[in-house]
Amino acid sequence: MKNFAIAVDLGGTNLRIAAVDEAGTVVERVALGTEVSLGRDRVIDDMCGAIEQVLAKYESSARLLGIGIGVPGIIDMQTGLLRESPNLPGWADYPVRAEIERRLKTVVILENDANVAALGEKWLGAGRQFDDMAMLTLGTGVGGGLVLRGSIWHGMNGMAGEWGHTNVEPEGHPCKCGNRGCLEQYASATAMLRMAKEAAAANPNSALARAATDPGFNSKSVYDLAMQGDEDARKVFRRVGRALGIVLSGMINGLNLPMYVIGGGASSAWDAFAPAIFEELRWRSMVYAATAPSDPAPSTRASAQLAPGLRFKTIVTRAQLGSDAGLIGAARLPMIPEAMR
Amino acid sequence: MKNFAIAVDLGGTNLRIAAVDEAGTVVERVALGTEVSLGRDRVIDDMCGAIEQVLAKYESSARLLGIGIGVPGIIDMQTGLLRESPNLPGWADYPVRAEIERRLKTVVILENDANVAALGEKWLGAGRQFDDMAMLTLGTGVGGGLVLRGSIWHGMNGMAGEWGHTNVEPEGHPCKCGNRGCLEQYASATAMLRMAKEAAAANPNSALARAATDPGFNSKSVYDLAMQGDEDARKVFRRVGRALGIVLSGMINGLNLPMYVIGGGASSAWDAFAPAIFEELRWRSMVYAATAPSDPAPSTRASAQLAPGLRFKTIVTRAQLGSDAGLIGAARLPMIPEAMR
Repeated sequence: MKNFAIAVDLGGTNLRIAAVDEAGTVVERVALGTEVSLGRDRVIDDMCGAIEQVLAKYESSARLLGIGIGVPGIIDMQTGLLRESPNLPGWADYPVRAEIERRLKTVVILENDANVAALGEKWLGAGRQFDDMAMLTLGTGVGGGLVLRGSIWHGMNGMAGEWGHTNVEPEGHPCKCGNRGCLEQYASATAMLRMAKEAAAANPNSALARAATDPGFNSKSVYDLAMQGDEDARKVFRRVGRALGIVLSGMINGLNLPMYVIGGGASSAWDAFAPAIFEELRWRSMVYAATAPSDPAPSTRASAQLAPGLRFKTIVTRAQLGSDAGLIGAARLPMIPEAMR
Repeated sequence: MKNFAIAVDLGGTNLRIAAVDEAGTVVERVALGTEVSLGRDRVIDDMCGAIEQVLAKYESSARLLGIGIGVPGIIDMQTGLLRESPNLPGWADYPVRAEIERRLKTVVILENDANVAALGEKWLGAGRQFDDMAMLTLGTGVGGGLVLRGSIWHGMNGMAGEWGHTNVEPEGHPCKCGNRGCLEQYASATAMLRMAKEAAAANPNSALARAATDPGFNSKSVYDLAMQGDEDARKVFRRVGRALGIVLSGMINGLNLPMYVIGGGASSAWDAFAPAIFEELRWRSMVYAATAPSDPAPSTRASAQLAPGLRFKTIVTRAQLGSDAGLIGAARLPMIPEAMR
């Protein structure tokens, strides 16, 4: 290893740190809980302490390119301030970048967590053969990242990619963003669980209702039921896929990108919701209909060359880097020129 | 005039040709009906004949930079073939560009009509102080054009900008694209008239119903009634504005552009539908809420400099070039390097 970057995935629950080489290999990783309740300064202390440990191990043998940090929330790219982060209360307008640069005396780049995941998938995952791609990240909420001509599209002040708040049902379920019927209300892990509980309440003698009494009942339980053929659970995922299909239709019609990636923890239910996505896309997006590949979700992993049948095709597929997408993308940030980020 | 371009606006009904100088001044214009029913070759003959007349007048005193043509439909940018154009039957896969280049022996650039209108508004209209903007064109249908970093965003094969087919109501009015509840079904001139007729049928003793019996009843008649305070007519435009607000909310959340322009013939009803757009945007788009200017539709025309209060603000406004946007944008095509188109 000659050059490496430190990647930080700073979530509301977990803080993960990795040393990543220029090939994208994670050579070292540290996972800490984010002690959000103990306050911002404690989290920064923990993070800097863990980074220093990793640095001590490698800095004699390899050159540090910088630190990339993925953070939930909206970042002011000019100042490196975290403008708004519902999952990191007390961090608003705190100069995260400047503080860590001061402590560790190296380049620090802050980026929205969904953008970082998109950059990771673009570099080494599902999007690596494409310069233009969009990614939806299904987690507690629904995030989004857009990569155009190889770089993250930030929009005029870093707020782009918020497809989680695209309208699906004009008078649908209220969203914490203030709107009703946002994608996030139908395709996040939270929404999957809510819809399952609604279905359980509506049908109290069902297998889903029985499962819902378990204290550990979560979106994974709903997925397991769906894959066993439970109709109530399958309906939940049809709603997930329909909402994703409606929003992706609009993105495909508007942007005409070659690649749309679905990632995040809740994308592990892909097999349950993907069929409904493609069903919606075929009739709701004329651009998709004109550009659909014969295999709706072809692998783009097999070779370094894009299969000729996929040229000018619209590919909608699941992410390939799993929970590492954010770390890989964060590590990429200090490796590329500023104009390419 | 030293250099000039020929602009062609080739519609399903009208064929307009202009000579435009490098400042964007239309120095000569010719309007012909598009004799679509007489066939493609006749239209090409008429077009080339008219262009030659204009050229004869200027070619001794000024240098022709090329011909830009705005066409409804999807264009293959590599080959200059018109791939699909519902309003120009019989033109599919016809080598329009090559044929006109052969006849007139000059550079010909073909571009989608909504893209060309967006380029016109970006050059000299509402978007002229912005490198990034989107435009919705309300006409018989609803077209769209996206300008990113100063150039038209074509997407992977020229199909980008089709926001007219973004979903507004998942189970709404059927659209000829195959989807239901597309923006086009609520915000085109056609839709305005349809919704007015529905309202007239539902309320046969209303002023709107009386007006609808007039053989010349059109979207302009509905607008006039709305501006006179007729509640049924006003409701039609609230539906128009609501649909535009829903779709613009998604565009603003996803792209975070500084400027969104509403143009096309039916945008002359702006005063009737705009209030509902802003009402929707305020609660449906968190990005809009965070970036709304104090004046929701400020003029960007007044000075060459953007007013300081509009920096990092999201502006939604009506187009400024009227029906000339397409001609101005088409003329711009041969004036800029290929990489900037």
